[in-house]
Amino acid sequence: MFQSFKATSRPEQGPPRLRLLREEMAREGLDGFLVPRADAHQGEYVAPCDERLAWLTGFTGSAGFCAALQRVAGVFVDGRYRVQVRAQVAEEFTPVDWPEVKLGPWLREQLPNGGAVGFDPWLHGVDEIEKLEQALDRSGIHLLPVSNLIDRIWQDQPEPPAGPVVAHPLEFAGEAAEDKRARLGRALHDAGEAAAVLTLPDSICWLLNIRGSDVPRNPVAHGFAVLHADGAVDLFMAEEKLAAVRDHLRDGMRIAPPDTFVPALERLEGRVRIDPASAPVAVLNALRAGPAEPVRGRDPCVLPKARKNVAERRGAEAAHLRDGAAMVEFLCWLDAQPPGHVTEIAAAAKLEECRRANPELADISFDTIAGSGPNGAIVHYRVTEETDRTLGAGELFLVDSGGQYPDGTTDITRTVPIGPAGEEERAAYTRVLQGLITVSRLRWPKGLAGRDLDALARMPLWLAGQDYAHGTGHGVGSYLSVHEGPQRLARSGEVPLEPGMILSNEPGFYREGAYGIRLENLVVVEEAPPLPGGTVAKMLRFQTLTHVPFDRRLIVSEMLTGPERAWLDAYHALCRRKLAERLGSRARDWLEAATAPI
Amino acid sequence: MFQSFKATSRPEQGPPRLRLLREEMAREGLDGFLVPRADAHQGEYVAPCDERLAWLTGFTGSAGFCAALQRVAGVFVDGRYRVQVRAQVAEEFTPVDWPEVKLGPWLREQLPNGGAVGFDPWLHGVDEIEKLEQALDRSGIHLLPVSNLIDRIWQDQPEPPAGPVVAHPLEFAGEAAEDKRARLGRALHDAGEAAAVLTLPDSICWLLNIRGSDVPRNPVAHGFAVLHADGAVDLFMAEEKLAAVRDHLRDGMRIAPPDTFVPALERLEGRVRIDPASAPVAVLNALRAGPAEPVRGRDPCVLPKARKNVAERRGAEAAHLRDGAAMVEFLCWLDAQPPGHVTEIAAAAKLEECRRANPELADISFDTIAGSGPNGAIVHYRVTEETDRTLGAGELFLVDSGGQYPDGTTDITRTVPIGPAGEEERAAYTRVLQGLITVSRLRWPKGLAGRDLDALARMPLWLAGQDYAHGTGHGVGSYLSVHEGPQRLARSGEVPLEPGMILSNEPGFYREGAYGIRLENLVVVEEAPPLPGGTVAKMLRFQTLTHVPFDRRLIVSEMLTGPERAWLDAYHALCRRKLAERLGSRARDWLEAATAPI
Repeated sequence: MFQSFKATSRPEQGPPRLRLLREEMAREGLDGFLVPRADAHQGEYVAPCDERLAWLTGFTGSAGFCAALQRVAGVFVDGRYRVQVRAQVAEEFTPVDWPEVKLGPWLREQLPNGGAVGFDPWLHGVDEIEKLEQALDRSGIHLLPVSNLIDRIWQDQPEPPAGPVVAHPLEFAGEAAEDKRARLGRALHDAGEAAAVLTLPDSICWLLNIRGSDVPRNPVAHGFAVLHADGAVDLFMAEEKLAAVRDHLRDGMRIAPPDTFVPALERLEGRVRIDPASAPVAVLNALRAGPAEPVRGRDPCVLPKARKNVAERRGAEAAHLRDGAAMVEFLCWLDAQPPGHVTEIAAAAKLEECRRANPELADISFDTIAGSGPNGAIVHYRVTEETDRTLGAGELFLVDSGGQYPDGTTDITRTVPIGPAGEEERAAYTRVLQGLITVSRLRWPKGLAGRDLDALARMPLWLAGQDYAHGTGHGVGSYLSVHEGPQRLARSGEVPLEPGMILSNEPGFYREGAYGIRLENLVVVEEAPPLPGGTVAKMLRFQTLTHVPFDRRLIVSEMLTGPERAWLDAYHALCRRKLAERLGSRARDWLEAATAPI
Repeated sequence: MFQSFKATSRPEQGPPRLRLLREEMAREGLDGFLVPRADAHQGEYVAPCDERLAWLTGFTGSAGFCAALQRVAGVFVDGRYRVQVRAQVAEEFTPVDWPEVKLGPWLREQLPNGGAVGFDPWLHGVDEIEKLEQALDRSGIHLLPVSNLIDRIWQDQPEPPAGPVVAHPLEFAGEAAEDKRARLGRALHDAGEAAAVLTLPDSICWLLNIRGSDVPRNPVAHGFAVLHADGAVDLFMAEEKLAAVRDHLRDGMRIAPPDTFVPALERLEGRVRIDPASAPVAVLNALRAGPAEPVRGRDPCVLPKARKNVAERRGAEAAHLRDGAAMVEFLCWLDAQPPGHVTEIAAAAKLEECRRANPELADISFDTIAGSGPNGAIVHYRVTEETDRTLGAGELFLVDSGGQYPDGTTDITRTVPIGPAGEEERAAYTRVLQGLITVSRLRWPKGLAGRDLDALARMPLWLAGQDYAHGTGHGVGSYLSVHEGPQRLARSGEVPLEPGMILSNEPGFYREGAYGIRLENLVVVEEAPPLPGGTVAKMLRFQTLTHVPFDRRLIVSEMLTGPERAWLDAYHALCRRKLAERLGSRARDWLEAATAPI
């Protein structure tokens, strides 16, 4: 098993640790210290040694931070974690509704006479700290970069991860690392820049065609790098991790231990790009200590990485066939279980088993969300032994999961009825499906961003007074992070969509305390062929990567328009054609029935 | 007749005037001078004395500017005017494709050794000049504010307009001017500001509940004003215009001649707000010359003016019934004319006659766009005696027009077939109608801006490879400008839509050289009542103000979805119910047939 369902929170451990931290703060003359969930690489999953927020507070969510002052310790969490945080932290901690309450105003209120607040400059981005400094303007509160106070008091803090790094074969990467380095180096040169500092592990792994195993679910290796305008790269990564890739990382590569990163930054010259959205403050400070002129710009890997090349697209298609077959085996199995029999954990375990039956699976791409009945309405629900419940008759079961394969990353959500479903649920499911179909059928003039399209997926729900409180889609990596920027199908998606970008298409509907519905396919942006009578020179569309049927029992056929019905029937026929030969005979029969015309 | 169809351009007048301007430039030591279309008030229509661009170049479009240098004189116009500018200016002028080519880079190219470029600080906004200065950074080109060179050489330049000002009755304004002044003054006070400078005539007219007659089509009075935090207003406007409103402008008002505006600005103290998007550079310079601290912010009238109150909404409804009846009389008349008989000018004149039959009409709200066949594909087409053509059999005729009534401003577009229409045209018309219906039926969560909704109107066209190169809708004033910000249904619409905002809903499709289709209703934003089963606390929707049927001969019924057909039938039934009693018997019969169920 990749996934564990243990509840790891032990609220009673928090208060003594908070006392130790406050003593350390007093010793340093600090009135406060910031403890973020993030590590130096801003990833969604962090290594055990970086679980500082959970160690201090007990809160295990994937986002948030603690602002520990002498009299109050605020734990800032967003809407997903309002309930969870109350269960996980002791009363010495004060949950704060973030981002409604922002850190700057909160600090002003808690420290009316000003004070010194420490932070670890490796764990906070340049933009983040500069915005906070603006918010604290004329408050008498000063931010001080200090070495991490948690690391001083955390006795049994694990060592940094040292997972082995492997080469990502050209067959799947589609472009040799030296070609990527040369291409991006040239772009730096043309921009008049001498180098760019890379701090995001998926940027470094993409650029060098390597994959690592430092954190669960994301096949990345922690490290830093400097890309020079001549295409040379300095990689700052522990030697021990690189045994298997010494040959792969040859010409134009210099490998150095992580502790030489700062001295190297201090020696850089010329205009050096950092991405203020992700680069730690410590990187900017190191550059400022030397002769370099730091300039702000986007991480040069981000957009090229987002635009998947032909090999990456082909890999994504292959990975999705494998993953789709596993999903169909799982759905067939689930369908055969009587209501009131299977638990959420049992279902998630069975799904992982179906995926693992394929030896090419490297990992699941995130901890499976398996929510039945009211748990389905918790958008980022992670089942534990404490919250586990049985899938009961008349309930909906929402399962959001994915796999990491060497040729691609998958992410799929389906919602199924356990026994007969109610009319309200069926109507809501149909509206969510209509939103997904609208995105699937769309073509649009090149140049638009996700924000310009997001409403299209919501309109069927809006007309019924309904909506969902998350984006319609996020970017997805190629055997990298399942959440990858900068492309988004959401109100925050300001980057124009370009051919090769992979995104999720996942509208939903959630009735709190009752049920949740989400339907998710991955799609890849491609150029749309011209149509007779068309007048727009360049249009784009989505090609759907995921091929797993939608539950016919939950579709109200009369609500669909003719073109929606035609799309669905064609999609189901394609699911059948693509997956049938990969299935056992029971699952093949199930698929046959599940994909009959509506 | 309000509208004239004379072609006013005389290209041969331009070159001698350009010679005079260049002599004046040389006298001032200038290498260039900027001549914008805009006046000091940034309105769409300008007074004859402000027609400097047309006087110099011959170009009469509603947007653009000339950058006159010693060797080249660029006339910058956008996509609407590429053809027109070539017909209107002599070869001494060089048309420039704007905004693809921007002024800054163009000046850099034309003046590689730098130079001094003059501009009239009353005719250019703060933002505009600051952006241009940035674009000229390190070019050696300097921008110099000077008194207007055109005004020195234009011998028979008309006097500034002196149209009488009238009171806008409380019955239509819905809020007394003293209440508006007190409310907005309080908001300034709460923002820590002593005063705000108002330079937009529609802001001043809205705030003081007055209407003027200085420019055609827009019932505004030119002038400037300062709103103080105590609600007092200094109005800088020619005494002679104000004879009829002396009683109306009493308490808390100080009226002063326009030439005392600058000295008054120089005497202001404290933080004084200016809107950098519209305030002339001269205003900022005057504030800087005195003790005031200029602060940048939105014109405080803009948002309150956009959110129409109950009286303004009721007025809009009444004006639209009047205007709708005139449109139906016109469409009935047009339908009775044999193909090949009526010209564009004759049709526009007939339509104006139908509107003027109602004594409450104050003016048309803009020069009617009446384009048949290929002229319909020119989005901002204005028919003149030179371009006039006959409405021929098998053609489409597009007519976009509106009226100014004391209780509201209207704007409507309909497209009708002259004789039998082709299948391609009918399909395109139906897609445009589907876009309009989508917007009409929509409800959405409060907080979204026009940009978030714009795609919904385009999707039926996108699916056929088609689109339109303009926004879906613009804001509309209340017996004020027919184009009013900040609300927009367009990619540039970043302001959240709020109840009371009036917008147009006008998708279109244009096949160059063949035909144009546009359908336009005005709509007003209102709160949407909750729906059973709905989960979104606050939703908004559009109430349609315009009630004139869409042409059934151009609708392909099978392309419509069930809900679209239901909307259309209900809309047509409403047109019949609202307008029948206002029509003559022929038009009533015509309406009966035109609104039969699809």
